[in-house]
Amino acid sequence: MAHVMWHLYQFPICPFSRKVRLLLSEKGIGYELVRENPWEHREEFQMLNPALRTPVLTNPERGIVLIDSRAICEYFEETVDKSPMINGPATNRAEIRRLVALFDENFFASVTSPLLEERMKKRLIYRQPPDGKILRETIRLANDYLDYVDFLIDHRPWLAGSTMSLADLAAAAQISVADYLGGIDWSQHEQARGWYSVFKSRPSFRPLLTERMDVIQPPTHYGDVNA
Amino acid sequence: MAHVMWHLYQFPICPFSRKVRLLLSEKGIGYELVRENPWEHREEFQMLNPALRTPVLTNPERGIVLIDSRAICEYFEETVDKSPMINGPATNRAEIRRLVALFDENFFASVTSPLLEERMKKRLIYRQPPDGKILRETIRLANDYLDYVDFLIDHRPWLAGSTMSLADLAAAAQISVADYLGGIDWSQHEQARGWYSVFKSRPSFRPLLTERMDVIQPPTHYGDVNA
Repeated sequence: MAHVMWHLYQFPICPFSRKVRLLLSEKGIGYELVRENPWEHREEFQMLNPALRTPVLTNPERGIVLIDSRAICEYFEETVDKSPMINGPATNRAEIRRLVALFDENFFASVTSPLLEERMKKRLIYRQPPDGKILRETIRLANDYLDYVDFLIDHRPWLAGSTMSLADLAAAAQISVADYLGGIDWSQHEQARGWYSVFKSRPSFRPLLTERMDVIQPPTHYGDVNA
Repeated sequence: MAHVMWHLYQFPICPFSRKVRLLLSEKGIGYELVRENPWEHREEFQMLNPALRTPVLTNPERGIVLIDSRAICEYFEETVDKSPMINGPATNRAEIRRLVALFDENFFASVTSPLLEERMKKRLIYRQPPDGKILRETIRLANDYLDYVDFLIDHRPWLAGSTMSLADLAAAAQISVADYLGGIDWSQHEQARGWYSVFKSRPSFRPLLTERMDVIQPPTHYGDVNA
């Protein structure tokens, strides 16, 4: 473990930490996981990041603290040449960043965040059952995004164009957490399912699929790379 | 107007459009305003941006459509050398992007978004009075962020370091909209007020301060560059 110098503060179904982990793996950068439940407001963590959010990536030897998943991704894009993920001419880079924002902000607000609230926080923190009406609404909204992924994959091999990019990593990270929490109905989404199954079998993605979030279990198809 | 080729879809108190306008002005890029109320879900706008959010920046002559305020800022940072706003070594650039995210995401979610809901949408759309309890809570939360600005300005001339950066533009954009909507109490924030008043007198900022949002009027100190 002598080469590990980055420490990633995260929990297994944090979608933003997943995006960073996919990027680090694709770029061949080693890191160690530090388990952090941001909803516990741990004092040392608040000192590290006043916004109290994961992921945070630290390099104690070099005195670096990186905060915010997009800032972290841009940092490694700028400092590591291997496997560029924000690539091509400026308009293509803008398209990649548009799709990253669509999944990080809109998909997260409509789908991932309510699922984390209903299926994770209500179980672990509030000890309440999930609200069935909210769950049905998130599945309906997730469906609209999968329609959009189908549409993109009808026109391009990857979400933002001809090569894999940060847009694919951001989308797969959000969708994988929604899938873990039972929010994805794949049945009507041939193209999206094809795109996602290619992803699932990548060495960067497979470790994520075997991790479990405490007492919360994913559906049986979740970790199956052939599903 | 022969040189105007960019069209910015926005409304006067959209904080993300303000950030883009500050950046375009600082970089000397001309643009024309197109008024867009995203809550009206205008069909042509939804065709342009399925996420139905402002700002959208188009260049019809060159067939370019830019969506998402951070993607737009990165685009002009990459294509226009004048007045770099994401500057310095990679760790400094990461610090700039951390602060942009803090204001675009956290400040917006805690302060600007509830103020827009209570003071703008309830007036223009729902015809309801604002909820006083929510307004008091946003002012309290805004105060925490101003404390943080005070702290940063105690240590640095600008929010992210020794030069003006996109962090300053993002923060000023959010704070100016919150100020317009009566959400800012400047009385205990000497450093933040000094930083903001330097901003207010810049040529990039002054036009924003004279624009009004339909029937919603700002407090008297809002547009006063000496306040």
